[in-house]
Amino acid sequence: MTTEIVKNILKNYEGETPGVKAKLHSMLMQGALGGTGKMIILPVDQGFEHGPARSFAPNPEGYDPHYHYQLAIDAGLSAYAAPLGPLEAGADTFAGQIPTILKCNSANSLMSGTAGKDQAVTASVDDALRLGCAAIGFTIYPGSDCAISMMEEIVAMRKEAAAKGIATVIWSYPRGEGVTKDGETAIDVAAYAAHIAALLGAHVIKVKLSTDHLMLPEAKKVYEEQQISIAEQAERVRHCVQSSLNGRRIIVFSGGAKKGADSVYDDARAIRDGGGNGSIIGRNSFQRSKADALDMLGKLIAIYKGEA
Amino acid sequence: MTTEIVKNILKNYEGETPGVKAKLHSMLMQGALGGTGKMIILPVDQGFEHGPARSFAPNPEGYDPHYHYQLAIDAGLSAYAAPLGPLEAGADTFAGQIPTILKCNSANSLMSGTAGKDQAVTASVDDALRLGCAAIGFTIYPGSDCAISMMEEIVAMRKEAAAKGIATVIWSYPRGEGVTKDGETAIDVAAYAAHIAALLGAHVIKVKLSTDHLMLPEAKKVYEEQQISIAEQAERVRHCVQSSLNGRRIIVFSGGAKKGADSVYDDARAIRDGGGNGSIIGRNSFQRSKADALDMLGKLIAIYKGEA
Amino acid sequence: MTTEIVKNILKNYEGETPGVKAKLHSMLMQGALGGTGKMIILPVDQGFEHGPARSFAPNPEGYDPHYHYQLAIDAGLSAYAAPLGPLEAGADTFAGQIPTILKCNSANSLMSGTAGKDQAVTASVDDALRLGCAAIGFTIYPGSDCAISMMEEIVAMRKEAAAKGIATVIWSYPRGEGVTKDGETAIDVAAYAAHIAALLGAHVIKVKLSTDHLMLPEAKKVYEEQQISIAEQAERVRHCVQSSLNGRRIIVFSGGAKKGADSVYDDARAIRDGGGNGSIIGRNSFQRSKADALDMLGKLIAIYKGEA
Amino acid sequence: MTTEIVKNILKNYEGETPGVKAKLHSMLMQGALGGTGKMIILPVDQGFEHGPARSFAPNPEGYDPHYHYQLAIDAGLSAYAAPLGPLEAGADTFAGQIPTILKCNSANSLMSGTAGKDQAVTASVDDALRLGCAAIGFTIYPGSDCAISMMEEIVAMRKEAAAKGIATVIWSYPRGEGVTKDGETAIDVAAYAAHIAALLGAHVIKVKLSTDHLMLPEAKKVYEEQQISIAEQAERVRHCVQSSLNGRRIIVFSGGAKKGADSVYDDARAIRDGGGNGSIIGRNSFQRSKADALDMLGKLIAIYKGEA
Amino acid sequence: MTTEIVKNILKNYEGETPGVKAKLHSMLMQGALGGTGKMIILPVDQGFEHGPARSFAPNPEGYDPHYHYQLAIDAGLSAYAAPLGPLEAGADTFAGQIPTILKCNSANSLMSGTAGKDQAVTASVDDALRLGCAAIGFTIYPGSDCAISMMEEIVAMRKEAAAKGIATVIWSYPRGEGVTKDGETAIDVAAYAAHIAALLGAHVIKVKLSTDHLMLPEAKKVYEEQQISIAEQAERVRHCVQSSLNGRRIIVFSGGAKKGADSVYDDARAIRDGGGNGSIIGRNSFQRSKADALDMLGKLIAIYKGEA
Repeated sequence: MTTEIVKNILKNYEGETPGVKAKLHSMLMQGALGGTGKMIILPVDQGFEHGPARSFAPNPEGYDPHYHYQLAIDAGLSAYAAPLGPLEAGADTFAGQIPTILKCNSANSLMSGTAGKDQAVTASVDDALRLGCAAIGFTIYPGSDCAISMMEEIVAMRKEAAAKGIATVIWSYPRGEGVTKDGETAIDVAAYAAHIAALLGAHVIKVKLSTDHLMLPEAKKVYEEQQISIAEQAERVRHCVQSSLNGRRIIVFSGGAKKGADSVYDDARAIRDGGGNGSIIGRNSFQRSKADALDMLGKLIAIYKGEA
Repeated sequence: MTTEIVKNILKNYEGETPGVKAKLHSMLMQGALGGTGKMIILPVDQGFEHGPARSFAPNPEGYDPHYHYQLAIDAGLSAYAAPLGPLEAGADTFAGQIPTILKCNSANSLMSGTAGKDQAVTASVDDALRLGCAAIGFTIYPGSDCAISMMEEIVAMRKEAAAKGIATVIWSYPRGEGVTKDGETAIDVAAYAAHIAALLGAHVIKVKLSTDHLMLPEAKKVYEEQQISIAEQAERVRHCVQSSLNGRRIIVFSGGAKKGADSVYDDARAIRDGGGNGSIIGRNSFQRSKADALDMLGKLIAIYKGEA
Repeated sequence: MTTEIVKNILKNYEGETPGVKAKLHSMLMQGALGGTGKMIILPVDQGFEHGPARSFAPNPEGYDPHYHYQLAIDAGLSAYAAPLGPLEAGADTFAGQIPTILKCNSANSLMSGTAGKDQAVTASVDDALRLGCAAIGFTIYPGSDCAISMMEEIVAMRKEAAAKGIATVIWSYPRGEGVTKDGETAIDVAAYAAHIAALLGAHVIKVKLSTDHLMLPEAKKVYEEQQISIAEQAERVRHCVQSSLNGRRIIVFSGGAKKGADSVYDDARAIRDGGGNGSIIGRNSFQRSKADALDMLGKLIAIYKGEA
Repeated sequence: MTTEIVKNILKNYEGETPGVKAKLHSMLMQGALGGTGKMIILPVDQGFEHGPARSFAPNPEGYDPHYHYQLAIDAGLSAYAAPLGPLEAGADTFAGQIPTILKCNSANSLMSGTAGKDQAVTASVDDALRLGCAAIGFTIYPGSDCAISMMEEIVAMRKEAAAKGIATVIWSYPRGEGVTKDGETAIDVAAYAAHIAALLGAHVIKVKLSTDHLMLPEAKKVYEEQQISIAEQAERVRHCVQSSLNGRRIIVFSGGAKKGADSVYDDARAIRDGGGNGSIIGRNSFQRSKADALDMLGKLIAIYKGEA
Repeated sequence: MTTEIVKNILKNYEGETPGVKAKLHSMLMQGALGGTGKMIILPVDQGFEHGPARSFAPNPEGYDPHYHYQLAIDAGLSAYAAPLGPLEAGADTFAGQIPTILKCNSANSLMSGTAGKDQAVTASVDDALRLGCAAIGFTIYPGSDCAISMMEEIVAMRKEAAAKGIATVIWSYPRGEGVTKDGETAIDVAAYAAHIAALLGAHVIKVKLSTDHLMLPEAKKVYEEQQISIAEQAERVRHCVQSSLNGRRIIVFSGGAKKGADSVYDDARAIRDGGGNGSIIGRNSFQRSKADALDMLGKLIAIYKGEA
């Protein structure tokens, strides 16, 4: 039974096609968090970005795309996201068992120079339709010299996807010529990145958890004058939620490189307490053994349910 | 009842589709200024350009897109302009209550270098149709090295929009490699910017109020020889009106960053006295509390009606 | 009644659509020079290129697009050429009264650097159809690094226009990285520019009057060896006519910046004596008072008729 | 009769069109290796890359495209791959006798500078359909500044091809600004290249045999920490197979420049022992006399059958 | 009656549309060489490349496009090639009298820098259809940084042309950043250029006669090791024929700038003796008086018939 929480989330997508709402519904009602308004998504696109060995050698079962499908299902997650090849490799076996997100662009670690500030578009909306996906996923790099063309690409794909009843998830990762290293996770930049994704029409926004650094001088002035609370992670999450059309858009947070379990749990509590909709958690799940991963994901689910 | 003033304005759009005329009519007959030939438009695209905190922290209600819809309605304004995301977030709730303008391209403060002289196209004519908008809005930067591609983008979109019965508002903001800092608001450049928008087929032209500075040496010579009156703001407004096909196109003026109320009123009187069609007023309205904003907007309406 | 002269001109457009021939016919049979095989065209695109004040302040009636329509009609000219905005502003009032040419690309004085060697495409063939135009007008800059893309743009538009029964006028103005200042009006370059327009399929070619300078060393050698006559303006006109498929294409000449009336008359006599098809005369007409302009244009018509 | 081995390979292409599976089937069931799950492909695109004399002078019969068709047929190979011209030159004579792969992009040795890091798209999916091909072939250069556009080209062509029932073979050759000379054949880079091809949706992956060099510092660390076995060629083949969706995609290896026969045989044994699907062998076959080539290819077939 | 020679040539175009074969047939059966398998083509595109005076002043009748049509007919040539403008100027008068080739891209002498290494696309396949042409003609510059885009342009046009029953002639002229001055006519480069045209699917290949220079070091080694005969012009022609799919494609040679008649005849004998299909001869015919040109062309025909 669709919960009131989910109904209220869907209400915020005014004027959107029923197809898109049904796809958001499928993710919000899936698995152990179904109906809570919270989501955990398993993304496996690190192979493109870092190569196969860096991604899968720590837990070699991960070389097989079926492993990830099954992990997401067994853990009771909300959705599984991957590029075309691996998604296609299990599309038939796992059809209907878990909502999938087709990651439609990808970066790699082999390119040098300015080309490394862009991503290749590697799949299409029609591929997502054909494979029965719930959503397309797309990364933009606000701050990169390629940001304009990346935005124009997702704007066109989002339009096509929505018309065809597919939702759009935007990974909004500040990077490139206009962003310092510290700035990539600065709270003013993170909130800005979430806001841009929302303005572009993302149905689900994915940003990184941020630090209390402020990169843009003009913004810094305002944060200080207006005394915006950003000292705690939960406060920074809340500010990103606010920047996502005042919470009218689903926003999930990523945890980054593999780290200790306690740190992952602390992140999830901050996301929960700040009003975020959940986690997108890749290396911290598939680079652990399956037993460890199921254990950790179970604990995260409990946290989002307010039970841990 | 459609007034003679409005009928006469519409007559200037010779050969245009009835759909476009009906959309201009909807804005000219809306709200407190309905029928007067004057317009006040609320634009909320600063979040894209400056980020969410710089835009909305001074009046945090502004984080919510519904706030702006309601503000424009309550103040009796002519139209509300915003990018895709926030417009979509209220499209259903406020359907038909106020004409909307879909801002179809956007700049941001994160990009560095030449890329910062361009805007990303972030919405389409079909999005405007789907959301029931009265017009598309588009910014060009005359003087930028990207000006040619920006002009070609809006020319194509304007053609599609007019064929589909949607009006076109062009924000014509001189900027970039060919324009000095002072030149961005120089009167010769402002009149030129208004003229270019008119030549491109804009139905409504938006420019900034200008100073008496003259940037282009060849133009300076002519202004002096021909003794063109540009000392007063109202004279400069009049010159921009004249440059907009001798007043055959609607032209509205923007006020820039938040400032004192008296200064905003002075601007409006100059626009009115110079024959301009009104104001497009963003930060000076939504960065004030709602009460203050309604107060100021009410006063502006009175000014345009000749009552203040 | 269509004259033999006009019939013979049209015969040269072998294999062209009847629609295009009918449009050429409409210009060749229009006004005081109707039937003579000569044409005078009023072009008003200087506002885009130089800004409104430099173009219209000397005769402020020119700010109004209706003024130019009426001037062309009252003077008995062959056609009126302008960009989208002003053409649309009088399309209904003057429908059918004078053939119009929609100028489909435009330069401006605000851009710096290499971008200043290109023009923006600002209107389409469908716009010309919708507005009832006789022709599209398009500028190419032979010698510019942008020349290839400009040629490719007009080749595509000309094809579409001809198929839809619209004629094509090419403004062929040498300019850019490959052309010296003197070379822009050198006779070898001018003849080359006319030739390129003809090769691209222009129905009407527009070039500037030239000087006896020779820019290209390889060409200079040939002009001297073959003793090509280029000392007199009429001889240079004749050489351009010859270079336009041996006179099988209509070629008109422009006069440039405003200057003394006698000089304008001398130009026209040279065009006439060299076998050119007429003048395209902008600033020298609309920057004079209407009375003076009518006077001058009447005199020019008399010259082309061989009566002055 | 289709073997279980082939049926099991085809099962891995989940959700793919029956047309694509039938084409893979045609290659897997063709010739002396039909039914074994192994393939040997004859590629003749060196003429484009190195010119005709360097390619064919050592065995001048190779100037004639018919020679290669016949060689592939006589040797009992699985498929013949070539660019448009030579494929078309025998398409009728050899129709149906051997599966063909239309190589759809090509590099050449005449271009200098950055342009040499890209390939021209020289044929289309419709050409492949018209010529009755089993697959399209396409090269990408991971590591080149052109890699993003090359990936986007093949992603679009692969989508069209699959929809039209044509398989896709991706030649994944690391090269360009981001790759050192040693890195072009480093095992970490080779496995990454195979992985990228798989992620892009290749049905058949072609990479070069690699060395035990490790180019990417971040990857080197992981290979050492995880003690990934890469000392032997067969181990490196196995790692590439693993990186191709854990063996769910067909992967063949190329041997490079002409060399001694024993070396070619050693390569094949390593490919076989590492679980690879076979060889793509060009210069080592067509630059030998036909007798020698048949001899060598026969021996390779025996090796893949486990008989040598 | 179609000769066996012509039938055998057409047999080489396997799988090609009957429309294309009929067009090749029309050129092979036309004029004084009809049925011999040899061709002489009159190309007149020098006006675009060098300007009108350098092209036509030596024989001013050449300014008129009708002159060239008539010259090709009177001399009994196989086809006449020209850009859009001049072809259109006689399309009706000479309809059906001689096969025509629409030259679809063109260079010019006015552009400087890298832009001078490319050509503008100035006509389309539909133009060729409309004008009743037998073929499209297109130049590529192997070795130029623009070579990839030029190849991609002709590949797309060739595909469209063949589907619409129009043949494709590729002018393959090595030039640009990757080619030295001597290399432009080096035999290794010429054979490579012919080979590339064949690989791209050209139906008729046009290259320049070459010298015995070898530009590419890697190729030089092979020519020396394999003792490829290139000392005589006829041997070099034979090598180019061999490089054109072993003679399965028609290849004609151009003679370059105007020169003494004896030199032209020697060239033709070498082409004939080397197995080439004929000449494409522009300036050496139309820059002579008509009488001299007819005389020379008659002699060339006799040479190709083996009578001189």
